[in-house]
Amino acid sequence: MDFNYRDDSLALHTDAYQLSMMQTYFSQGLTNRKAVFEVFFRKMPFDNGYAVYAGLSHLIQYIQNLHFTPSDIEYLKATELYSDDFLTYLATFKFQGTVRSMAEGELVFSHEPIVQIEGNLLECQLVETAILNILNFQIMVATKAARIKSVIGDQSVLEFGTRRAQEFDAALWGTRAAYVGGFDATSNVRAGKLFGIPISGTHAHSLVQTYRNDYDAFKAYAQTHRDCVFLVDTYDTLKSGIPSAIKVADEFGDRINFIGVRIDSGDMAYLSKQARQMLDAAGYPNAKIFASNDLDENTIQNLIMQGAKIDVWGVGTKLITSYDQPTLGAVYKMVSIENEAGEMVDTIKLSNNPAKMSTPGKHQVWRIRRQADGKSEGDYITLVHEDPRQQDSVYMFDPNNPFLNKTVHGFTAEPLLQDIFVNGELVYDEPSLNQIRDARAQHLDSLWDEYKRDLNPQIYPVDLSQECYDHKLALIRDVHDYVAQLKK
Amino acid sequence: MDFNYRDDSLALHTDAYQLSMMQTYFSQGLTNRKAVFEVFFRKMPFDNGYAVYAGLSHLIQYIQNLHFTPSDIEYLKATELYSDDFLTYLATFKFQGTVRSMAEGELVFSHEPIVQIEGNLLECQLVETAILNILNFQIMVATKAARIKSVIGDQSVLEFGTRRAQEFDAALWGTRAAYVGGFDATSNVRAGKLFGIPISGTHAHSLVQTYRNDYDAFKAYAQTHRDCVFLVDTYDTLKSGIPSAIKVADEFGDRINFIGVRIDSGDMAYLSKQARQMLDAAGYPNAKIFASNDLDENTIQNLIMQGAKIDVWGVGTKLITSYDQPTLGAVYKMVSIENEAGEMVDTIKLSNNPAKMSTPGKHQVWRIRRQADGKSEGDYITLVHEDPRQQDSVYMFDPNNPFLNKTVHGFTAEPLLQDIFVNGELVYDEPSLNQIRDARAQHLDSLWDEYKRDLNPQIYPVDLSQECYDHKLALIRDVHDYVAQLKK
Repeated sequence: MDFNYRDDSLALHTDAYQLSMMQTYFSQGLTNRKAVFEVFFRKMPFDNGYAVYAGLSHLIQYIQNLHFTPSDIEYLKATELYSDDFLTYLATFKFQGTVRSMAEGELVFSHEPIVQIEGNLLECQLVETAILNILNFQIMVATKAARIKSVIGDQSVLEFGTRRAQEFDAALWGTRAAYVGGFDATSNVRAGKLFGIPISGTHAHSLVQTYRNDYDAFKAYAQTHRDCVFLVDTYDTLKSGIPSAIKVADEFGDRINFIGVRIDSGDMAYLSKQARQMLDAAGYPNAKIFASNDLDENTIQNLIMQGAKIDVWGVGTKLITSYDQPTLGAVYKMVSIENEAGEMVDTIKLSNNPAKMSTPGKHQVWRIRRQADGKSEGDYITLVHEDPRQQDSVYMFDPNNPFLNKTVHGFTAEPLLQDIFVNGELVYDEPSLNQIRDARAQHLDSLWDEYKRDLNPQIYPVDLSQECYDHKLALIRDVHDYVAQLKK
Repeated sequence: MDFNYRDDSLALHTDAYQLSMMQTYFSQGLTNRKAVFEVFFRKMPFDNGYAVYAGLSHLIQYIQNLHFTPSDIEYLKATELYSDDFLTYLATFKFQGTVRSMAEGELVFSHEPIVQIEGNLLECQLVETAILNILNFQIMVATKAARIKSVIGDQSVLEFGTRRAQEFDAALWGTRAAYVGGFDATSNVRAGKLFGIPISGTHAHSLVQTYRNDYDAFKAYAQTHRDCVFLVDTYDTLKSGIPSAIKVADEFGDRINFIGVRIDSGDMAYLSKQARQMLDAAGYPNAKIFASNDLDENTIQNLIMQGAKIDVWGVGTKLITSYDQPTLGAVYKMVSIENEAGEMVDTIKLSNNPAKMSTPGKHQVWRIRRQADGKSEGDYITLVHEDPRQQDSVYMFDPNNPFLNKTVHGFTAEPLLQDIFVNGELVYDEPSLNQIRDARAQHLDSLWDEYKRDLNPQIYPVDLSQECYDHKLALIRDVHDYVAQLKK
């Protein structure tokens, strides 16, 4: 492919309507008009009890490098859709907004802001598309990974999905999100290089085809690698693959580290039990059995219940494509806008579906925990000037059903939205990927088991403060009044 | 995110086991051993009657730029998994293989080779992962796009999915695949710049929120753009949105090109009919109604059957994520390998699932057409030395059920696998994107309607030549003999 232009700027990785709106604001003198937008999602991924937040790292990289190159401007000019003075503005555009976000590895829930962008109208619009493009994918994979990890427990689980991923970036960032969610290693070498994720992989069926039998292939592999996992199902797992693996392990003794065998087809429960017996009988009780083949949390759970003797799980397609729900559907909604008088005015997008209404105002999300044991009581969304740490108790109620309510005493309240960029400057000190992964494990520990059930978990409370709730009702009434007055 | 390394080489965008096998071949003196691999898929995407081939362009770009950078080698060395002489080899690695492929926009089917790689064992293994990573996604989107286009007919359909795509590359290459499949434009400005795809988009709900009512927002937009499509569902489609759009169109007259209105929520059938009446009554019979909101071929078909008055369709999530089947599951199998004596020996990967068996040998795929009208009779897979153009008739039979057979007279046979790279040199003159898109339309014209039905289409014949079929049976027997002899 010869690109029409050679550089690979991401400033144009946005929807055309963002640029159209930016031109309107620019030409109408609204360039410095302040706005606040928030990202949230409406439905828990996979109907899981929690989601794992991932994607901030790519978001930071995107914003840091955001600028229009000469070829971007040249292309926009050629479309004849934009005025010259607007293009001149874009040529020196620099993101100077403030970004707040959850930390990666944090547990997040539907209907709460997970990212907040505050800036002028133009910069807020420009970044919407790419931010959603990142988060809608990475949160899904991190959450799917955590679901898979939860059924596997202390066993190892490897990410093998690159070939089935939706193009290169999905493979790369997907495996990072999988690592955040609890996976232990990846087959993607580039992810190993760029993120420091451990890499894993020995050989494919083609190695056996090259040597035309298992034994010669395994021997060649053993002669050229210390750590050996032999793939045993090219021709016949039990009659050829496993006996050949044992024979090579016997012959090479201490010269190799015989880690185990991998099975990639056939009935995993039956084959793994047979393989375990054969390896044990041959004196290799520590040799591990790796399994891969369209696995996900459901098939893994079933195999475990059937007593499959699998030690290491390789998961590809179902994880990396977020197969059973390929996107999160997170949205980016304006919650506050400066008016002509320079005052911030909160704003709402109405819908006849209550789940699709935005919650007006600039918010903070507080995780409310019992002081005694640190267990989460729920998340509490306030307007930004409220601080529940000043209160003795928190009255929490379900905004969709205020009859469901409780008053919490003896609590801690942790603000979850943190400053990432302030006026365009990166102020956030990114934790390492392993710190993020460990944080996710700790956050899961503080969550009651009822929210962690794979199927039909309890719904974690995400509540609005009374002020936030009243404010939303008032704005809905305002819009109704506005529409009613139009009819006259 | 601070990457551990700064450059963005794609040589390591591969599975770790490819490098492990390469090291084995290298160390065992098999570096120049020739092999042939073929890419095929086993199941038609969405159970559609055809698939649309896309992805070659990215594949070419990947192969052309394939080399290990100093930081790639540095990283590999740090893993302590690879020998120094192997890394020295990689540092000067250059792809020198031969790549054959279908042309983009071609209609392709399960169980036929769509890409063929011939080269030394090492280069053939290295590229497997990235090739599948590209094709498994792009073919899905191109096919989904063609399905959607087929229910829409001559109306326009726009790709709006970037925000819901699985990271940046999926958005970018996905919109290109959608264009190949028949979409007319995209919201992704970067795809406009890089591929020359027309871009489309006017404004979002946030514009209306900024001006706090539809009328002022549309007026501001009209003052700053010639082409106007007003989004009418921010507060109330029928009471506020459409009346405001008409009012602005009246006031601006010829100063704007009032293209129409867009509806993004609510009942599309009801709202579009009402909108049509209102626009007609106001003297705008040519104003178009744009609809977007989780559309796919099924919802669009239903809306059309309900008499929805929609002129332009915006499709996002369901297309760009290939929602109902997020990956094609194409595989890359060794079909022939050079032996110690320098002869090419065909090879098979067995499975107890016949669909999972590879077809040994290096192949050509021939599209058999009736000479009279050019309609396709089916695809005919031969070993590479066969040429059906030398024959008076072609005996075609279903390899899974030889009772299903026919003899075709008066035919043309077109070889579909074309040389792309020969010994590492690009020899293929890529058609323009619009030529590819037109070719897809022509290919669909030559396909019987029975294969184009959205639901339960006829199965298009993909048949093996008698020689190809007998050869496969013989190799299966060889493997069975080999396994049987092991048991003794």
